[in-house]
Amino acid sequence: METHLEVSKPFNRKDEIYSVLLGHRSIRVYDDRPIPEETLERILGAATRASSSGNMQAYSIIVTTDQTLKGKAFEPHFRQPMVLKAPALLTFCADFRRMRKWLLFNEAPDGFDNFMSFMIATIDATLASQNAAIAAEAEGLGICYLGSTLASCKEIAEILHCPPGVVPVVGFSIGYPKEQPEDRGRLPMNAIVHREVYNDKSAEEIQELYKQKEEQGLRRYLKDPTLKALLEKSGSKNLAQIYTKLKYTRESHIKYSQCVMDCLQQQGFMPP
Amino acid sequence: METHLEVSKPFNRKDEIYSVLLGHRSIRVYDDRPIPEETLERILGAATRASSSGNMQAYSIIVTTDQTLKGKAFEPHFRQPMVLKAPALLTFCADFRRMRKWLLFNEAPDGFDNFMSFMIATIDATLASQNAAIAAEAEGLGICYLGSTLASCKEIAEILHCPPGVVPVVGFSIGYPKEQPEDRGRLPMNAIVHREVYNDKSAEEIQELYKQKEEQGLRRYLKDPTLKALLEKSGSKNLAQIYTKLKYTRESHIKYSQCVMDCLQQQGFMPP
Repeated sequence: METHLEVSKPFNRKDEIYSVLLGHRSIRVYDDRPIPEETLERILGAATRASSSGNMQAYSIIVTTDQTLKGKAFEPHFRQPMVLKAPALLTFCADFRRMRKWLLFNEAPDGFDNFMSFMIATIDATLASQNAAIAAEAEGLGICYLGSTLASCKEIAEILHCPPGVVPVVGFSIGYPKEQPEDRGRLPMNAIVHREVYNDKSAEEIQELYKQKEEQGLRRYLKDPTLKALLEKSGSKNLAQIYTKLKYTRESHIKYSQCVMDCLQQQGFMPP
Repeated sequence: METHLEVSKPFNRKDEIYSVLLGHRSIRVYDDRPIPEETLERILGAATRASSSGNMQAYSIIVTTDQTLKGKAFEPHFRQPMVLKAPALLTFCADFRRMRKWLLFNEAPDGFDNFMSFMIATIDATLASQNAAIAAEAEGLGICYLGSTLASCKEIAEILHCPPGVVPVVGFSIGYPKEQPEDRGRLPMNAIVHREVYNDKSAEEIQELYKQKEEQGLRRYLKDPTLKALLEKSGSKNLAQIYTKLKYTRESHIKYSQCVMDCLQQQGFMPP
């Protein structure tokens, strides 16, 4: 028996890992069960094992369970209900503050007050967040990334007391799932994967690659009365128009761009 | 037997996933075995299942195995030997080009020519890359992230024929491991994890949190004759000084910041 398990292990491992990676669904509805401390610690431990630039780990993770703090974060997180209802929010911050203090203490030069440093730290934080997401799903928990973490980074930095050198960049709500959402679908592999060099597609090829997404997406909008009403009000005729008339408008992206840039200046990642 | 395996499954899954997440080591030396196409496809499939902002999948993955192309990428990748010797490089690009073509074709407004869009796409690309990294390790492959992908994004974009709207942001070399590197260690959890809000540390607390890293890091440098010589030449007295006198100088970070900004302007993510 021991031997049998030993021999079949490599296959099991691969299958189990793919079942988590391929089984991902964003979970927005959670039951009331809190996350046991030891479970949370395993997840955070896995997060810190992710690759980071020069092993500098230029990020911090803020675990927020306090209802008052989650209430304050509700507006900047665009009033998404899971911000209030999830037992915890994990906020991953680009963080060179800790490293820079260590440099100062050790009389080392400090070159981490610039845009490149912010980008390195953002990538470090995002790699750690995805490790945490996968560990969470392996634990039977569900997560939903909050793009609002970056869009509202200035306000969220204030709510979470982030000092200079620290910028919230990614985050997710986490808890035990109380819904089983359908698979949202993905673009076909040849829309995403390029061999050797970038293979630029014609408009017609792209229309073909987006066909299934277009159909699935529209069906989803038409099934939900609230979404359907929004769609009609905006005069959107297809999924592409829903994306940029309703969800990701030019005005909002210009506003968020300015918000992130302001936050980078304020937190010391950009020359003023 | 069937029943026994069924019952123990949830535990196996968790254990197997943690064994991959916690077992990560960056692999820089590979054997000559190429990566079978079906293995690569499973890895890329797992990458595309990662969360992405609004399910927009604002990224592309370029798989480069051609020796001439890898040769061209060698300099911009800071002459790291694994760029030439790994059977493949995976380059994850922030990419709103595909989406914007789709919007145009569908007469939808386009608001993705700005900094926020670049950041969203960078985070999407990084989440996908970490899924790919974990799938690769579950397949028995090893990877090493290349921070040079971002630092040299302008040159790498040119080598990989990236058109406007596409910026290489993360990448790794990948292949079957021919080394078993030691665990590089991580900062203690309380250096990284903050409860409820950011808990700013004193310089003394930070010195204590970095103590083990300092010792391990210095030992690593002193064991390697090349690194030891470099260390002595630079007059570095501690690990902090090694980091910013030798590896991450202010001058290099200012240069890379400018390179990324130039690339964002060139590729249409920033007003000129």
